[in-house]
Amino acid sequence: MEIRRVMTKFVLEKLQEPTVNNPILIEGLPGIGHVGRLAVKHLTIELKATKFATMYSNTFPPQVLIKENGIIQEMKNEFYFWKADDPSKKDIIFLTGNTQASTPEGQYALSNKILEIAVNYGVKIIYTLGGLGVGRLVETPKVFGAVTHDKLIPPLEKLNVIMKREGVGQIIGVSGMILGLAKVQDIDGICLMGETSGYYLDPNSSKAVLSPLTKLLNLKVDMNKLSEKAKAAKLRVAEAQKIERKMMENLGVVQKEPSEEQMRYIG
Amino acid sequence: MEIRRVMTKFVLEKLQEPTVNNPILIEGLPGIGHVGRLAVKHLTIELKATKFATMYSNTFPPQVLIKENGIIQEMKNEFYFWKADDPSKKDIIFLTGNTQASTPEGQYALSNKILEIAVNYGVKIIYTLGGLGVGRLVETPKVFGAVTHDKLIPPLEKLNVIMKREGVGQIIGVSGMILGLAKVQDIDGICLMGETSGYYLDPNSSKAVLSPLTKLLNLKVDMNKLSEKAKAAKLRVAEAQKIERKMMENLGVVQKEPSEEQMRYIG
Amino acid sequence: MEIRRVMTKFVLEKLQEPTVNNPILIEGLPGIGHVGRLAVKHLTIELKATKFATMYSNTFPPQVLIKENGIIQEMKNEFYFWKADDPSKKDIIFLTGNTQASTPEGQYALSNKILEIAVNYGVKIIYTLGGLGVGRLVETPKVFGAVTHDKLIPPLEKLNVIMKREGVGQIIGVSGMILGLAKVQDIDGICLMGETSGYYLDPNSSKAVLSPLTKLLNLKVDMNKLSEKAKAAKLRVAEAQKIERKMMENLGVVQKEPSEEQMRYIG
Amino acid sequence: MEIRRVMTKFVLEKLQEPTVNNPILIEGLPGIGHVGRLAVKHLTIELKATKFATMYSNTFPPQVLIKENGIIQEMKNEFYFWKADDPSKKDIIFLTGNTQASTPEGQYALSNKILEIAVNYGVKIIYTLGGLGVGRLVETPKVFGAVTHDKLIPPLEKLNVIMKREGVGQIIGVSGMILGLAKVQDIDGICLMGETSGYYLDPNSSKAVLSPLTKLLNLKVDMNKLSEKAKAAKLRVAEAQKIERKMMENLGVVQKEPSEEQMRYIG
Repeated sequence: MEIRRVMTKFVLEKLQEPTVNNPILIEGLPGIGHVGRLAVKHLTIELKATKFATMYSNTFPPQVLIKENGIIQEMKNEFYFWKADDPSKKDIIFLTGNTQASTPEGQYALSNKILEIAVNYGVKIIYTLGGLGVGRLVETPKVFGAVTHDKLIPPLEKLNVIMKREGVGQIIGVSGMILGLAKVQDIDGICLMGETSGYYLDPNSSKAVLSPLTKLLNLKVDMNKLSEKAKAAKLRVAEAQKIERKMMENLGVVQKEPSEEQMRYIG
Repeated sequence: MEIRRVMTKFVLEKLQEPTVNNPILIEGLPGIGHVGRLAVKHLTIELKATKFATMYSNTFPPQVLIKENGIIQEMKNEFYFWKADDPSKKDIIFLTGNTQASTPEGQYALSNKILEIAVNYGVKIIYTLGGLGVGRLVETPKVFGAVTHDKLIPPLEKLNVIMKREGVGQIIGVSGMILGLAKVQDIDGICLMGETSGYYLDPNSSKAVLSPLTKLLNLKVDMNKLSEKAKAAKLRVAEAQKIERKMMENLGVVQKEPSEEQMRYIG
Repeated sequence: MEIRRVMTKFVLEKLQEPTVNNPILIEGLPGIGHVGRLAVKHLTIELKATKFATMYSNTFPPQVLIKENGIIQEMKNEFYFWKADDPSKKDIIFLTGNTQASTPEGQYALSNKILEIAVNYGVKIIYTLGGLGVGRLVETPKVFGAVTHDKLIPPLEKLNVIMKREGVGQIIGVSGMILGLAKVQDIDGICLMGETSGYYLDPNSSKAVLSPLTKLLNLKVDMNKLSEKAKAAKLRVAEAQKIERKMMENLGVVQKEPSEEQMRYIG
Repeated sequence: MEIRRVMTKFVLEKLQEPTVNNPILIEGLPGIGHVGRLAVKHLTIELKATKFATMYSNTFPPQVLIKENGIIQEMKNEFYFWKADDPSKKDIIFLTGNTQASTPEGQYALSNKILEIAVNYGVKIIYTLGGLGVGRLVETPKVFGAVTHDKLIPPLEKLNVIMKREGVGQIIGVSGMILGLAKVQDIDGICLMGETSGYYLDPNSSKAVLSPLTKLLNLKVDMNKLSEKAKAAKLRVAEAQKIERKMMENLGVVQKEPSEEQMRYIG
């Protein structure tokens, strides 16, 4: 018997070949408040996007997750695609997953790999979604933007995305790095960051981030439904605090990750 | 004179070739409470398993241990085998040792290496044993499970292994990662985790973990003897606290590791 | 479409070929108080030096910066050159940028790369500029020196650069490492370190460092102008403290970096 | 002009070829209290040993030192040799320097490299010297031993080296790792560790370690002179505390390293 998959730098397992034309890329990997990840998950579910590839890597953290039913899950990134249903929209490739890389050089390698895949499918514009931790509960999260090119600013400001800031900021991780790499390729890049406490997964911030994004892309995504779910999630914060305390008590090293149930409240 | 062994990624020194048929693999490396390591050590001693290989690696921590008699011991993993003594049982390969890898990429490389060895011997099911830190002394440790495939859950639940949990958990290190890699190879994988305080080595938790394991494998391991030793170990916790305090006072940087004597109380 | 620049160890993008004869190298990368970086930025602006190359690297931190207008900026090092305007001066290559490497091995690789570039252009003497954190506000920063060869000490001491110290010190990062590497190449190396609190970017310390440097190099750099700007910057410390506090409150993870406006007060 | 020395994994610059027969290796690199380093420095000075090689490496910390006169010094390891002056003694190779490697894999590579060099010169026994931090001032430091083989214990115990301990200890870094690697080569290895507070460089502990070592090797090293210097060094502890406080105040990031003057008190 042979080893079927040696865990090397990157292993991309394709389920099918996506049939997309000049797609855009929307990225939402785990980060502060899981804002980007929850937003992309919501989009893939509401738009009924199709998963077409899973990526594994030895740059990911050295662990597996245990889902609520006791089944283990490897650390991975996942690619989905969605075919535009009318000419006013664009085909989309979504990138999400349960992890980023665990070292600086791993993050560079991962961002390179993602951009390489995007370029292969002819991507000309990249949207990256994330949270912006503010260290306090936020009722109405503002959305901050960062872009690769000047020309991208006016349409964002028209949608109340805040572009100017007082100091020089940072975008740590894939959401920032693929924009830097995109710029070199003459690919347009936009990062949308929703304010979030940074303490809990925050669907309310995800909703805030999706508001300008869906307008920009002319997508009809069921936002009312998301609003309700965000409200439910809000109610769950108190409960989550209890669960977390109990988890700490019962499970110790088994650390907090959004539960599937919590995810269902979003998507 | 030549360098006999340059310390590279992995050096596997075989003492003999094990004569096993479709063996299972049982892993117990150091981790929280040394629960898995103590459990596997107990099995290898009680079953009179035969050591057949030692593995060294530059992914291990940059140190050696000093045993109680003053002899130094390299960081290493060790493989044992055991031939089933009747047709109702299966041959077993045991993996134990005094360390895991010291970096994320090292953990990936180590897990790959272990799986490669397992696949080479035709392993079709892997059991990994570990502790689950709860931050308080536990009289009657519960045993939690995590598996690669649904079909493995019912037999575990019948033996009171807890499979469902409220949140998404993690298994950090080799115990989790080789299950993730096994899943891809269509190898079944089961992780059994015993509750433990996380403060001391915990033979009582090892005993808890061995209870469902020996039933699953139809092994007659002297559990009464282990029970007594676990009780003795319990009495030693207070003493260990004293020893540790004294060690800190006397030896400073020489950090706590289970003493051979403490190990003997188990095995 | 092809990937135009895969982020590898180092990518050096040349804008033009500098026409320099036996130039010196002056390095000022980010470090404590951004003393070296601000000093070199001031020199490149006042001397109207010409940017000729940008260097990217996967040894840099895995992030991008967001400038005040919302445009993202990659982590990078930049090379400038300046042609001496009379025979009493020397041609200069300047190295500055927004980052150093993020790992020990990355710092070695980066320092090697920089030295290789310097040697290629025939550099025979290297000046590195930096801060020396003292943990309190400093009105009149002293300047400390460190050199590769004995013969370089007297001219520095004549300019009140402090060469003797009570203990053995360290220069961490590129400013120190390229001097170590230069020494082996029979290249002279001088490090000038200005006292700084270490809490804020400190143009006053940059000014202190430039005083002996410009005398050594017979450069007529508008120091009065810098003095004024340093005073303005000093007034801004209190404001910066407010901005920082507000930033922490508003932006959370978006960490402090000197703003473009703050930079303009210097350059 | 060419780059003369690209900083790679290891660069060994030989000054001369040592003329030694079946030498022993004595290692003393920086570690807790600089006990081993000071002991080896003392031996090389008293025995008038000859430096024959310097080793540089990108596994070392990314920095240079500044000596008290302002001259920078690269991070390095140094090899000395000493020819036995009568047949009752053995030729010696000494390894000392101002650093160990900065990463786990670097420590493995460095230890391998050192052992390779030792094996090349026909070394059959290795002595490694170090400190054992106890977190309090020690008037009369005990000496603990650790060895590769049983047979080495009795002569050490006869010299009051403590071999037995209650728990399993660790030797972190080169002093431990080259013993582990030596064992595989059928090279005998002995580690001698002197109790030390861990707060200051501790020539008194170095003296304690040299006592059994010189007896084992039948070396007539001026121990009285070392005793006096150790006493002087003891008087300097209070002063060193003042200097350190002042350094912290004056120099900030420039961290504590034994000054040349302090070194002179020993050697």
